Amino acid sequence: SIFQDLDLEILESIMQQLDARRIRENLRELSREPHLASSPQDEALVQLLLQRWRDPESGLDSAEASTYEVLLSFPSREQPNRVAVVSPTGNVLFSCRQSEQNLTGEQGGPDVVPPYAAYAPPGTPQGLLVYANQGTEEDFMKLQAQGIKLEGTIALTRYGGTGRGAKAVNAAKHGVAGVLVYTDPADINDGQSSTNETFPNSWRLPPSGVERGSYYEYFGDPLTPYLPANPSSFRLDPDTASGFPPIPTQPIGFEDAKILLCNLQGASAPAAWQGALGCDYKLGPGFQPNGDFPGDSQVNVSVYNRLELRNSSNVLGIIRGAVEPDRYVLYGNHRDSWVHGAVDPSNGTAVLLELSRVLGTLLKKGTWRPRRSIVFASWGAEEFGLIGSTEFTEEFFSKLQERAVAYINVDISVFANATLRAQGTPPVQSVIFAASKQIPAPSLGGLSIYDNWIRYFNRSSPVYGLVPSLGSLGAGSDYAPFIHFLGISSMDIAYTYDRSKTSARIYPTYHTAFDTFGYVDKFVDPGFSSHQAVARTAGSVLLRLSDSLFLPLNVSDYGETLRSFLQAAQQNLGVLLEQHSISLVPLVTAVEKFEGAAGALDQRISALQKATPDPLQVRMLNDQLMLLERTFLNPRAFPEERYYSHVLWAPRTGSVATFPGLANACSRAMNTSLGSPAWAEVQRQLSILVVALEGAAATLRPVADF
Amino acid sequence: SIFQDLDLEILESIMQQLDARRIRENLRELSREPHLASSPQDEALVQLLLQRWRDPESGLDSAEASTYEVLLSFPSREQPNRVAVVSPTGNVLFSCRQSEQNLTGEQGGPDVVPPYAAYAPPGTPQGLLVYANQGTEEDFMKLQAQGIKLEGTIALTRYGGTGRGAKAVNAAKHGVAGVLVYTDPADINDGQSSTNETFPNSWRLPPSGVERGSYYEYFGDPLTPYLPANPSSFRLDPDTASGFPPIPTQPIGFEDAKILLCNLQGASAPAAWQGALGCDYKLGPGFQPNGDFPGDSQVNVSVYNRLELRNSSNVLGIIRGAVEPDRYVLYGNHRDSWVHGAVDPSNGTAVLLELSRVLGTLLKKGTWRPRRSIVFASWGAEEFGLIGSTEFTEEFFSKLQERAVAYINVDISVFANATLRAQGTPPVQSVIFAASKQIPAPSLGGLSIYDNWIRYFNRSSPVYGLVPSLGSLGAGSDYAPFIHFLGISSMDIAYTYDRSKTSARIYPTYHTAFDTFGYVDKFVDPGFSSHQAVARTAGSVLLRLSDSLFLPLNVSDYGETLRSFLQAAQQNLGVLLEQHSISLVPLVTAVEKFEGAAGALDQRISALQKATPDPLQVRMLNDQLMLLERTFLNPRAFPEERYYSHVLWAPRTGSVATFPGLANACSRAMNTSLGSPAWAEVQRQLSILVVALEGAAATLRPVADF
Ligand SMILES: [Ca+2]
Ligand SMILES: [Ca+2]
Ligand SMILES: [Zn+2]
Ligand SMILES: [Zn+2]
Ligand SMILES: [Zn+2]
Ligand SMILES: [Zn+2]
Repeated sequence: SIFQDLDLEILESIMQQLDARRIRENLRELSREPHLASSPQDEALVQLLLQRWRDPESGLDSAEASTYEVLLSFPSREQPNRVAVVSPTGNVLFSCRQSEQNLTGEQGGPDVVPPYAAYAPPGTPQGLLVYANQGTEEDFMKLQAQGIKLEGTIALTRYGGTGRGAKAVNAAKHGVAGVLVYTDPADINDGQSSTNETFPNSWRLPPSGVERGSYYEYFGDPLTPYLPANPSSFRLDPDTASGFPPIPTQPIGFEDAKILLCNLQGASAPAAWQGALGCDYKLGPGFQPNGDFPGDSQVNVSVYNRLELRNSSNVLGIIRGAVEPDRYVLYGNHRDSWVHGAVDPSNGTAVLLELSRVLGTLLKKGTWRPRRSIVFASWGAEEFGLIGSTEFTEEFFSKLQERAVAYINVDISVFANATLRAQGTPPVQSVIFAASKQIPAPSLGGLSIYDNWIRYFNRSSPVYGLVPSLGSLGAGSDYAPFIHFLGISSMDIAYTYDRSKTSARIYPTYHTAFDTFGYVDKFVDPGFSSHQAVARTAGSVLLRLSDSLFLPLNVSDYGETLRSFLQAAQQNLGVLLEQHSISLVPLVTAVEKFEGAAGALDQRISALQKATPDPLQVRMLNDQLMLLERTFLNPRAFPEERYYSHVLWAPRTGSVATFPGLANACSRAMNTSLGSPAWAEVQRQLSILVVALEGAAATLRPVADF
Repeated sequence: SIFQDLDLEILESIMQQLDARRIRENLRELSREPHLASSPQDEALVQLLLQRWRDPESGLDSAEASTYEVLLSFPSREQPNRVAVVSPTGNVLFSCRQSEQNLTGEQGGPDVVPPYAAYAPPGTPQGLLVYANQGTEEDFMKLQAQGIKLEGTIALTRYGGTGRGAKAVNAAKHGVAGVLVYTDPADINDGQSSTNETFPNSWRLPPSGVERGSYYEYFGDPLTPYLPANPSSFRLDPDTASGFPPIPTQPIGFEDAKILLCNLQGASAPAAWQGALGCDYKLGPGFQPNGDFPGDSQVNVSVYNRLELRNSSNVLGIIRGAVEPDRYVLYGNHRDSWVHGAVDPSNGTAVLLELSRVLGTLLKKGTWRPRRSIVFASWGAEEFGLIGSTEFTEEFFSKLQERAVAYINVDISVFANATLRAQGTPPVQSVIFAASKQIPAPSLGGLSIYDNWIRYFNRSSPVYGLVPSLGSLGAGSDYAPFIHFLGISSMDIAYTYDRSKTSARIYPTYHTAFDTFGYVDKFVDPGFSSHQAVARTAGSVLLRLSDSLFLPLNVSDYGETLRSFLQAAQQNLGVLLEQHSISLVPLVTAVEKFEGAAGALDQRISALQKATPDPLQVRMLNDQLMLLERTFLNPRAFPEERYYSHVLWAPRTGSVATFPGLANACSRAMNTSLGSPAWAEVQRQLSILVVALEGAAATLRPVADF
């Protein structure tokens, strides 16, 4: 029927059918082999997904793989990357491990890619070692301020504080010749580092573990910005493409980092730079004469990474909507991993497959078909920079902008067992709340996921009082092109830690060869009840978005964000702007207009829900809700920020949660003179923002007004 | 009812009610006074429109004026612009007229703005005169090739061949110090120039007539590109804004041009440069010694134009749609004129007001309400560069992209009485054909407008056989921001000349003080039957778009355009591209995909029309039709072409009707070496095009496919 609405009985039955043991079996199968992007094992999983989604009993309406030709980066098999301490006479005094220790029998073999920094250029720099903390701009400034000559050195940095690639970019600006990156036990293991305190004896990172990762600055295939990487597409020359680390870079384990770091000479590093390797961290340059190496020994970093054009596939599975097939609710996760990737991303895909099985079974039985279409996606080459999802958004730009209702991302579904954690734009808050209120949290005697969640992450909302706090979306997973490039309301859902019990940056074996099925089964979520909780939450959100007559997107919740961004701008930038005769009044007015239009829309929705609306009235209203997020896009707002067009969620350099374009422009203009181009840019950014908010309000007003 | 469809009886009754005499009375009222943009008379017309559209008996649902603060350019009242011949000793030997001759009593008075080149900078250059034909790049190259030193000269050019502002841009590149522009009787009067052969004795341009115009290169308010010119908006510094003529420029009448041109010395101009002033056109530089002036006399061009921020209003009148109020059919024309502007734009506004009166009357009687909303618009400051309409599209960017079905522009409604002339994108062809087939052409014994039209403009369509030919949309009127910036299917409709009877560039008094009510009443359309024909045609198109259950946009007609562009590319660029190893095969495939998807969509529409579709099925299909044009937009395709984002209709430098991005890139790359950045840009443009066409095909495919 044209009035098909969410059926709470079917929803509840789906919740019951989502099976923890099946998720566990999915995970075992998905993480059996290392499945690096574009590897034969990755391609085998493409076939597994197609087979599941085409199953006559539990499959979807259709499923297809589509392939892009993308630029990836791999270490050389013939010439492994190497980090060594070299004596003045050229003798190798010490070499770092070239692979992780084979602790469970799963860390060996040709399919375990050795640790490397993807997209770091080849080269064999050699120089004195310095310790540069997290490799931020301030870190290198501090070293320089201490009088340390950075030219030609090798900088040892630890993960955290800034993006991977940024460490090499910052280092190169100071003449550093090569960069090493390691994970400090203080940052990942709550200080623990010994063998019997780490995996396989606990969930902690063992001493040989190394975080791999992409060091590319942007996202998407590096050779085809704004164009899908089809075989015939125009490609940049790799030599002129931008965003790669400028100097050779290599990650190492803390076992090796300890030997390098604890032998450094020079002044002690500041307290904030100290870690848990069990020695006083010095700055260098070079080694102390009384340590393990002669004082003038150097560190040699030999990187032999190669860029390769490879085929990488997305897999899409479709459930055709019964009433509004031209409205798409998308649900996706990447498929590729660095090694076995049991947590990242396979425990998300295990949930995805269980959800598609339950829905597919209802579909094939004829019990249910959603009001709107559902698109399941398994993205390729996310680990190299969200490549599969970005190419998809580039290829289907128009269709997605016209028709996508929302994008649900579940990458790592379970980091840990404590609580739900959700990120998203304001319109999705209410549907996540609604879903999580009706699902019991695992092992808490019937406490809802929502009531558990609010204990861990909460904020005081001026509208609702104390509520769980929704995080904002950066560019950490495949939701990035959907929200930033296309303006599609997006979210990322997972179960995660009790932050009072661990300060780990992320789960400890992240991007290492120790992220295996056994690790999940034993340490992350024995019994898989948190996996089930995520499957239910994400599944309920998916069903509510695809089946509700009125879209459960609460656009007036954007008003809270705008108001808080505005207050932060007034408090933090108000005086500065006033000094430059720039008024925030038009912005205040625009926020008020948004709030007024959103409030009035809420009232019209309530009234319509009580009446008997005709199907077109509902559709018109839903279009307003769906398209609100699109009104915040301006492709000309940040021309230098590739793909970022959303004027509220573009990257922000400062720490104040406010309008990014305005804040960034202010921080650039701050030290320039009145009337400089940088101050003109502040005014331009303010106008871009005001126009976007006024346009958003216009979209929410009654459609027959002009 | 939710199934409300076009009512042919109501349509026919509207056709009958559109009254030629009322259009004539509208025109008399609209053109009584000069109404230059932002003048008190222009503001008075804003009030007149509001009053008409708010009339209790014949008005619309609502009407509002909205005002932008925009940068206009005016001559100084205190210091009139002056063009003079000056002797070597500094005596003024001759001065051009500073205003047109007062032939009908309407060319005098303070409200008749003297002829000037809007946005030409002030300055008083003086130098030897040269004749530079139409002031194109090739024209100046030819002068240079003849050994004529252009540095410091004053170039006399005639209208035509290139845009107004381009003449000064081209001249300045060669060191020319000032530019004069005149209208040659050969180009406007079929060679006639004497007083008794011209207005008020015929429709031809009298000797003192001068075409005013904007010499600004882009469109929209010059200080607020991409932002609406609200009072608080960020504005460029006028000194750094681009697109203004680089050197002083002034238009003059052919009476004065004759005195300058027929006294030139030097070689004879080429045959193609000769005109109808009754002498042999020489090139200069300087005057012949035996003529009216000493041989070393110079020409002084004194320009005192000033830039001013002024308030300019749009007026919008709304008819709320009964069923789909969130779908807008827009119909507009500008209101501002250079002087009385009886033809340009008032004969269009006279039609607009008659149309809104008839529809408003039905509305107020309760007889009729359209299925979709109708938005009537009266734009401000078009003559200065489509400013009012552009600011409107900047302000309502999101809402219009979401909801606009089509834009109908009727600027000059009647140039002459011979035939209909229409420009538009392919989806509007069929609705204009349908309308014009059912309306009789004036004074032709029942021959339809369509059957008359096909006698004057036709082409052989591979699909339909011989049909009237639809022109393509440049940037000549307010449709430009709608089609190029927003991707809204647009059209421009008028009645025009028999080209076998006149070769005039445009109607002869265009942009002069002789474009008056009497001119229209006596020479352009006595009896106003052509006005009535345009009112009926445009009105029928408007009603079909606003009332038809299925949108009458034939998207498969785009297939013909794509196919012809493709064939032109293969024929004209194929060899060149092959030499550079660039294959057109992906483009061929993309065109085929478009044709396939469009053909299949046509079949689905036919099937649905025969069945009893539910209202959402119709809406989904109509959304595909409405949004097809949007899929051709790519805001990153031509970053240097302000506002132009439509990959099929962006400006093209060559004469071959093909894909503009590809053609322009090829002509830039042609003389560069293999592997140059210009050849990379050719490949990028080709990919942009392929992606756009594949995206267009994707939008037309069944919505549940992915
Ligand atoms: Ca790409
Ligand atoms: Ca503007
Ligand atoms: Zn991941
Ligand atoms: Zn990852
Ligand atoms: Zn006009
Ligand atoms: Zn005009």
